[in-house]
Amino acid sequence: MRATVMYRAGDVRLEEVPDPQLQTGRDAIVRVVAACVCGSDLWGYRGIAPTDRPRRMGHEFVGIVESAGADVARVQVGDFVIGAFYDCDYTCEVCRSGFSSSCLELGWYDGCQAELVRVPHADGSLAVVPADRLSDELVPHLLTLSDVFGTGHHAAHVAHVGEGSQVAVVGDGAVGLSAILAAHRLGASRIVAMSRNPQRQQLAREFGATDIVEQRGAEGAAVVKELFHGIGPDAVLEAVGTAESMEQAVRSVRPGGVIGYVGVPHGGPELPLRPLFSNNTVLAGGVAPVRNYIDDLLPDVLSGAVEPGRVFDLELPLGEIAEAYRAMDERRAIKVLVRP
Amino acid sequence: MRATVMYRAGDVRLEEVPDPQLQTGRDAIVRVVAACVCGSDLWGYRGIAPTDRPRRMGHEFVGIVESAGADVARVQVGDFVIGAFYDCDYTCEVCRSGFSSSCLELGWYDGCQAELVRVPHADGSLAVVPADRLSDELVPHLLTLSDVFGTGHHAAHVAHVGEGSQVAVVGDGAVGLSAILAAHRLGASRIVAMSRNPQRQQLAREFGATDIVEQRGAEGAAVVKELFHGIGPDAVLEAVGTAESMEQAVRSVRPGGVIGYVGVPHGGPELPLRPLFSNNTVLAGGVAPVRNYIDDLLPDVLSGAVEPGRVFDLELPLGEIAEAYRAMDERRAIKVLVRP
Repeated sequence: MRATVMYRAGDVRLEEVPDPQLQTGRDAIVRVVAACVCGSDLWGYRGIAPTDRPRRMGHEFVGIVESAGADVARVQVGDFVIGAFYDCDYTCEVCRSGFSSSCLELGWYDGCQAELVRVPHADGSLAVVPADRLSDELVPHLLTLSDVFGTGHHAAHVAHVGEGSQVAVVGDGAVGLSAILAAHRLGASRIVAMSRNPQRQQLAREFGATDIVEQRGAEGAAVVKELFHGIGPDAVLEAVGTAESMEQAVRSVRPGGVIGYVGVPHGGPELPLRPLFSNNTVLAGGVAPVRNYIDDLLPDVLSGAVEPGRVFDLELPLGEIAEAYRAMDERRAIKVLVRP
Repeated sequence: MRATVMYRAGDVRLEEVPDPQLQTGRDAIVRVVAACVCGSDLWGYRGIAPTDRPRRMGHEFVGIVESAGADVARVQVGDFVIGAFYDCDYTCEVCRSGFSSSCLELGWYDGCQAELVRVPHADGSLAVVPADRLSDELVPHLLTLSDVFGTGHHAAHVAHVGEGSQVAVVGDGAVGLSAILAAHRLGASRIVAMSRNPQRQQLAREFGATDIVEQRGAEGAAVVKELFHGIGPDAVLEAVGTAESMEQAVRSVRPGGVIGYVGVPHGGPELPLRPLFSNNTVLAGGVAPVRNYIDDLLPDVLSGAVEPGRVFDLELPLGEIAEAYRAMDERRAIKVLVRP
């Protein structure tokens, strides 16, 4: 089959590799219908994270179950499934407590920017979409449940966003935009999007943002605070993962407010504790347990109540995966969907 | 009057200084009945925090209102009052939202290890104790509402400790012990105290600890996790403020659990974000809004349902303030109460 391999910064190739095989009774092989490039894939592509040896890429996918091991009970061959971006058993105490992204048997796929992907805990990691509700138009929206919409929802959920919440969102990438949509879905009454990009500002507004702030740094924080009685919003959703974006969040949130952070920490893994302590800022977030969220979010996707797949503004065949990375890297696209 | 002045590390003196005077209509002068030495006072005493110039010491007190400005309405001359360890108006939006320790008019006293102290926002910072409920035996317990018991309560409160919670407490100083008592009061079913000191272990048990762990570091964290199904407790209350104690908390808490931290960050203000992100650890806490908690905690102190003043294991006259610091510094005392 064909699969995506990153060799080094800026060097992503589609290559012929052996088809994955069932290895245990709990495995399934899924034929990928759609996958995508993640903002976190760009850390390696940009050389910010090292790529010591060639590695297979991709962790977000929807597809059709091609074969399944003898112990797979819930998922059937032929099912259309959404894969959480990590592999989990979804039965252990940690999964049941809501944190499947810290599953006691947590694992990662070999890469699903490919034609086929092996899923070690098929009954855990895969959510089945009812066949009678499927349509091709839904594919992009369903694909976001694999990562970005669930991750945006996580930021809002851990920050206790609900009816009437006052929110600011740092980051206008696919996750930041998803966080806006999630906050809107949860009832936030005011949502400030921090963005300088007209196209992303537009989608932010369509997803529910009530205000746009273009300034950054201390100036941006001051503008955000001013929009909320000079005190700041209840919640800041951080969806970038740099020291700068986290500092933006820390400076903006009100005393006793919550930062819901889902940007993979990068380029600034150390967090100054003093300003958090002085301000009683709650820091919540981490690797989003998207598998736990699918049951909650899927109905609204199937009904069309939310259209999170609008973050995909470019679709390419898998054969053009290198261009998909380039388009994301150069910020020509918010998020790229690829179809094998 | 006599007041405590820190000149440099290890050099604390009781000196004659001018009596404080009313400066605005909102001021009151309080005659101190009891004050105490705080763990945070030791940072300067030990030279870990610099003392660039002589400074007046003390921020926890109970006393009797001696005089009040023309605009003071709620507090009366002759009232027995508990002073929050900071000065707040208790009317601004931030105070009303529960975070008076970030009051928009936040200030600090000149030092109450003294005979008299001026309180700039008397109607805000001072809580009146009903005269008919007062007794001399209650003084130590009431004094803890000025800081340590409220601070321990804050750690438990922000960590959502409630009925059936599983808790570990890092730190066996007065705040850590207060956090144990607060967690017990809130209904925690299991409370692990991390302590090596037999006397403190004993008080921890009497305050509600169900288990004692003497190990520290990675070993201590492993033992704590083992006590909670190998996964860790719902909440870890951190009451020290060093990099080591925070690391202890980070290593011990379950995925998705909360660290309620109230130790003033010191010696390790930078927090590694990666382990928090991987584990979905919520970090909550900061400068405890003790003024907000007094209404909730005072009835249980007046009724004797809790006896937080048992953290005072040494009482000295103000004249022996230098010995009070020494006893705390050498860990001969958990916490020292001084009476002018």
